Amino acid sequence: MAYLLLNGALPNSSQYQKFLEELKGGRSLPPRLRTVLEQLPSTTHPMYVLRTAVSALGCMEPESNERQGVKVATRLLAILPTCLLYWYQFAHHGHRIEEESGATDIASHFLTLLHPGYKIDETSVLALNTTLILYAEHEFNASTFAARVTTGTAADIYSAVTTAIGTLSGPLHGGANEEAMELIASMSNAAEVPDRIRKMLAAKEKIMGFGHRVYKQHDPRSDIVKELVQRFAQEKGRAQQFEIAQAIEQTMLQEKKLYPNVDFYAGLLYHFLDIPSGLFTPIFVLSRVSGWCAHILEQRADNRLIRPVAEYVGPTMQPFIALADRK
Amino acid sequence: MAYLLLNGALPNSSQYQKFLEELKGGRSLPPRLRTVLEQLPSTTHPMYVLRTAVSALGCMEPESNERQGVKVATRLLAILPTCLLYWYQFAHHGHRIEEESGATDIASHFLTLLHPGYKIDETSVLALNTTLILYAEHEFNASTFAARVTTGTAADIYSAVTTAIGTLSGPLHGGANEEAMELIASMSNAAEVPDRIRKMLAAKEKIMGFGHRVYKQHDPRSDIVKELVQRFAQEKGRAQQFEIAQAIEQTMLQEKKLYPNVDFYAGLLYHFLDIPSGLFTPIFVLSRVSGWCAHILEQRADNRLIRPVAEYVGPTMQPFIALADRK
Repeated sequence: MAYLLLNGALPNSSQYQKFLEELKGGRSLPPRLRTVLEQLPSTTHPMYVLRTAVSALGCMEPESNERQGVKVATRLLAILPTCLLYWYQFAHHGHRIEEESGATDIASHFLTLLHPGYKIDETSVLALNTTLILYAEHEFNASTFAARVTTGTAADIYSAVTTAIGTLSGPLHGGANEEAMELIASMSNAAEVPDRIRKMLAAKEKIMGFGHRVYKQHDPRSDIVKELVQRFAQEKGRAQQFEIAQAIEQTMLQEKKLYPNVDFYAGLLYHFLDIPSGLFTPIFVLSRVSGWCAHILEQRADNRLIRPVAEYVGPTMQPFIALADRK
Repeated sequence: MAYLLLNGALPNSSQYQKFLEELKGGRSLPPRLRTVLEQLPSTTHPMYVLRTAVSALGCMEPESNERQGVKVATRLLAILPTCLLYWYQFAHHGHRIEEESGATDIASHFLTLLHPGYKIDETSVLALNTTLILYAEHEFNASTFAARVTTGTAADIYSAVTTAIGTLSGPLHGGANEEAMELIASMSNAAEVPDRIRKMLAAKEKIMGFGHRVYKQHDPRSDIVKELVQRFAQEKGRAQQFEIAQAIEQTMLQEKKLYPNVDFYAGLLYHFLDIPSGLFTPIFVLSRVSGWCAHILEQRADNRLIRPVAEYVGPTMQPFIALADRK
């Protein structure tokens, strides 16, 4: 999917192998970047860690005639999971991880670094890779649009991706999967769901993971994630949380005619994969960086500065009062 | 000016003193930020240094109930010159500077850290502070707009400022003062200017520092900077470069009916202040951060997600071809 987004067509076998090798060869951190990541406190939101990692990497591996565009995008795809988990394991557990996993796909690499020593099962890898595909691109959401505004000044690709990560870090854009999971986890059984949701709605509390700016009726990505969640719930004996999630879905449909978006079941899926909830939105980044870079390259190919004209509606000419005379 | 932008009104005497004390008290770097800055290679564009510094500072001093809005903006105003010059002196000369200057104004602080040991004269301080005022705010330019898009998702102020710096780093937005100075420096006397400029225009080369998206006829900021430059040219015996600049101005007016914008004479002024040209656009940041933050706070006060809807015009549904069958 990342190859398609970055190159405009699916790869053939040899292109695919080459791309996987490039990903596999781009996992390790420059030593200076390790030192930067080690300075970021354990209390830091992991989105700010990624924002800082991309900005710092841009200082260490700047764009040049030999290194730009798809090459930088591929490096970011390869290295960002390592950046995130290097910081996470260092800040939270005080140890420097082995950065190489031998994996070519992002899910295997991520899960190996997150759970070192565990054998990663195929169902988990399939599930995580599937959500990465679903998260890869989604037209002019705020982070993608912001990345295009940055690119419009002919800024480098690292600036544009840094912009996108910062924009996605806002709770009105990213973060829904984390909050959806918190809601599910706050319920003890499916029977209590309808009352709880109705009370939250009556109190005008926001229920995260429902509705979408583009999909007014139904988010087709949600079905795919829900199917994966159902499979896990059975295999891993987590049926109760799946029932709670379904009850929330049904109540939201009855009360608000809103369907779950991709974030609603993705949160539960990541929970089943034993991923800490603070890493949910960063996982979104690990995938979406492919879509952002595709937009950045498209913007570059036919660039125009993006800047609206403001209409000033504040106070007009004020008398100047000397400092000593101001009250 | 920064106080006006951030608070909506000029300060009275006690507010002004308090603001200056806050700036003076916010100059020093957290030790971890020093370590981060020391990792950034000497070849890094200083704009990327500032982008990384703001992102990393956001990890170390995150927004909270006690620290947000105007407080963070004031800290950024105070600390960014130190960040820039700490990195500059460490990366280029290998030594860790004294971060405190005792100065309350930004120009004195900047010049003291840039030229340690030199006595900073009042004319230089006035000149630099004047350009900082002129650069402080300028409605919906690309960097300010991008900062508003980031803020629209309820992202933190550090994300929005990081976005703005990255966006300003693009040569179509920032950088004009640097390129204007290079052009002036490339001429040996005023007599050769008209021919050189006409040849550049005939070859469709871009002459930086002329025209402006908002000021179609005349940039009122330019006159103020020109007057400062003229004064320096006389005092410091640099009349020839001022004559060259004037000749470029006259030729551009004759040939293209374009007036110089604020960047044209600002580059020459900074050159007269013995500021390395790589720091010209970063100086823009040291000032504009006040305007950016004013916009960020205004956006927050009446927020709305900023995201256009895309119209997809690429290929529609494609047949899926299995990997092994792709050519």
